[in-house]
Amino acid sequence: MSLQETIETMAVNAKKAARGLMSLSTNAKNGALARMADALKEKKEFIQTENEKDLTAGREKGLSSAMLDRLHLSDKVINSMVTGLHEVAALPDPVGEVTEMAKRPSGITVGRMRIPLGVVGMIYESRPNVTVDAAALCLKAGNAVLLRGGSEAIHSNLALAKLFQECLVKQNIDPAAVQVVAVTDREAVNALLSLEDYIDLIIPRGGEGLIRFVAQNSRIPVLKHYKGVCHVFVDKSADLEMATRIAVNAKVQRPGVCNSMECLLVHKDIADTFLPKVGAEFGRAGVELRGCPVSKSILPDAVAAQESDWGMEFLDLILAVKVVPDIKGAMDHIAEYGSQHTESIVTSDYSNAQRFLREVDASTVMINASTRFSDGGEFGLGAEIGISTTKLHAYGPMGLKELTTRKFIVYGEGEIRS
Amino acid sequence: MSLQETIETMAVNAKKAARGLMSLSTNAKNGALARMADALKEKKEFIQTENEKDLTAGREKGLSSAMLDRLHLSDKVINSMVTGLHEVAALPDPVGEVTEMAKRPSGITVGRMRIPLGVVGMIYESRPNVTVDAAALCLKAGNAVLLRGGSEAIHSNLALAKLFQECLVKQNIDPAAVQVVAVTDREAVNALLSLEDYIDLIIPRGGEGLIRFVAQNSRIPVLKHYKGVCHVFVDKSADLEMATRIAVNAKVQRPGVCNSMECLLVHKDIADTFLPKVGAEFGRAGVELRGCPVSKSILPDAVAAQESDWGMEFLDLILAVKVVPDIKGAMDHIAEYGSQHTESIVTSDYSNAQRFLREVDASTVMINASTRFSDGGEFGLGAEIGISTTKLHAYGPMGLKELTTRKFIVYGEGEIRS
Repeated sequence: MSLQETIETMAVNAKKAARGLMSLSTNAKNGALARMADALKEKKEFIQTENEKDLTAGREKGLSSAMLDRLHLSDKVINSMVTGLHEVAALPDPVGEVTEMAKRPSGITVGRMRIPLGVVGMIYESRPNVTVDAAALCLKAGNAVLLRGGSEAIHSNLALAKLFQECLVKQNIDPAAVQVVAVTDREAVNALLSLEDYIDLIIPRGGEGLIRFVAQNSRIPVLKHYKGVCHVFVDKSADLEMATRIAVNAKVQRPGVCNSMECLLVHKDIADTFLPKVGAEFGRAGVELRGCPVSKSILPDAVAAQESDWGMEFLDLILAVKVVPDIKGAMDHIAEYGSQHTESIVTSDYSNAQRFLREVDASTVMINASTRFSDGGEFGLGAEIGISTTKLHAYGPMGLKELTTRKFIVYGEGEIRS
Repeated sequence: MSLQETIETMAVNAKKAARGLMSLSTNAKNGALARMADALKEKKEFIQTENEKDLTAGREKGLSSAMLDRLHLSDKVINSMVTGLHEVAALPDPVGEVTEMAKRPSGITVGRMRIPLGVVGMIYESRPNVTVDAAALCLKAGNAVLLRGGSEAIHSNLALAKLFQECLVKQNIDPAAVQVVAVTDREAVNALLSLEDYIDLIIPRGGEGLIRFVAQNSRIPVLKHYKGVCHVFVDKSADLEMATRIAVNAKVQRPGVCNSMECLLVHKDIADTFLPKVGAEFGRAGVELRGCPVSKSILPDAVAAQESDWGMEFLDLILAVKVVPDIKGAMDHIAEYGSQHTESIVTSDYSNAQRFLREVDASTVMINASTRFSDGGEFGLGAEIGISTTKLHAYGPMGLKELTTRKFIVYGEGEIRS
């Protein structure tokens, strides 16, 4: 079989499995998740032996220690997968929910029923725990999933999929509901992305390069975010203690993630008092500041910002700082350089708070809170399958519900159209 | 300017207009719609003069009378556009609706706010009234729209857009909110489909060829349906009077549209009694029947169905007829040949009704009703911008709400993440 045929066969089987999953009981789905949690504990040695093959190969290939760390299925990571499985099992089942039922003038009663999407393709890099986390969410939402992880984690991913499939079989669920694509070159990704007749949604997770490649080449709808360039705007009326606390938390608490702040915007009327204050805190935290001319004149230690620093995702202890004339200037900057991820205003002015909330075009807009809260768990979605910064289907953190859709249902008594 | 540059400039202007539309008041949007309704009446002569240019060119090109009819902006069509504008103005504004606000353990309050999508690209054929209908719905949902109609309607489309833009200007709305692409060759479509940085959604309306071309070439999410191959399954327990009434209505009432029935599935235990009954009705209505071997043995006038008749969208007084062993056989046939548009069961059996509703994968599933009800107006959406038979974002008839999305909003009091 050619590569294309191999992947197509997997997709055909996934679609067949998805038809069965559509009407599977919540108990059956939760049962499979609980079995997988048990299996991870019982077969930990097998998983870690397979994981060691990836780690050894990674060391030989000279992967960075950060990469090796992401690859490592330590006891702690395995325990967190077990916890994750129980948490997903505990979430309410979104499938089957019926809403908006209403009688129409013709006599028919029309409403909507929540249903699974069908087949989801996950394309991701390095972290093998994504294999289990994503499979669990897809299964709970009633979807079959095709998982295509990176070559560096192939032994781990195949071992985890084998375990998952054994649990599915014990639960009388078609094991094609969870499949790992064993072929790890780019051709396999291209093959997946062409199978629009079998796959309903592609979710890429990884570096911007991978995500752009997927978005450019997919015939299937893609839910994605390229990057997180989050701003905090400190308005004239801000409580400056609060603003300092939020700005430092947004930048420093975990700088390597997409919901950390990359650019601080400061109202010109308070720049003289606020910037030295927050600048001292950033100095203590080891943050490099790249300032516009005005902010540089107030913060002598700041580096002069280049044009390329606006809109830059540093993912590091580096922060762009800009003084703006007013809220409109802040919103204009965000419209030009933001990434539609998360934007926050610190203000005590009611009108400005509401205006920022309404007019800023981002998947999450905040008043007086750290951008670091932008997360499915923190927002109460229960679990997060990814974040979308495009507006179709889902915008922002995506949970179980975003892995479903709704169909129209009609109850009639023999009505015909006249 | 090159064609690509021309279209890109339009898209850039549309995106700029969209930023203003985002927070426009409902009154302003409704005001523009009312002005357009008045303008259509006042400038009817101008519109019909421009329309006459298209009709003349169409006659010279030898367009069919059906095509010329679709092109014609008769008094009746103009009046229906006027009515449509008033109806859209009367619909509730979906933008700004806030739902699901809840306090989280961290102290922040999180919810969702409904917002416009941004810029919508409509790609359509022949009917110039789509220009006004689609522009009205997009405007009401707070979106800018780029309209690319067919060459055969270019004078009519440009005249309607000119009128609409005059109304926008009078209402202090950026006229770039409604733009018609004056270039009508395929290159203009390709140019539009590449502008993912400016356009958020593409909706194609027209023949399957146009829609497939758009889906294959778009870098932007597309909401579409290729065709409607709707089935009615008459179960063993069906009320045969009701089944006859529904089957005849679904096929005959308006055979040329996507929600008409193309294939009748009949439970084997009632085929002997039901088929002669419904066959006589179809005979009176002039419907050609193409039957499976069993149904042909019961209906001697039926033509033998070819494999290609299953899943065929006849859009005519032709019907495929198949006898199936049971509900599972009916659902298997639908899974193989259906188009995920509308499927209906006629039954008096509670379990079978519920099972069909749950397990059939189509954007609309009905019990005891004619497939002809599958329509945004009949379902209470107020107006319909199109139908989606893919599952992302919208599945089934799409109204105003489907031209919007939701962002997360967060109210804090200075919370930071620990």
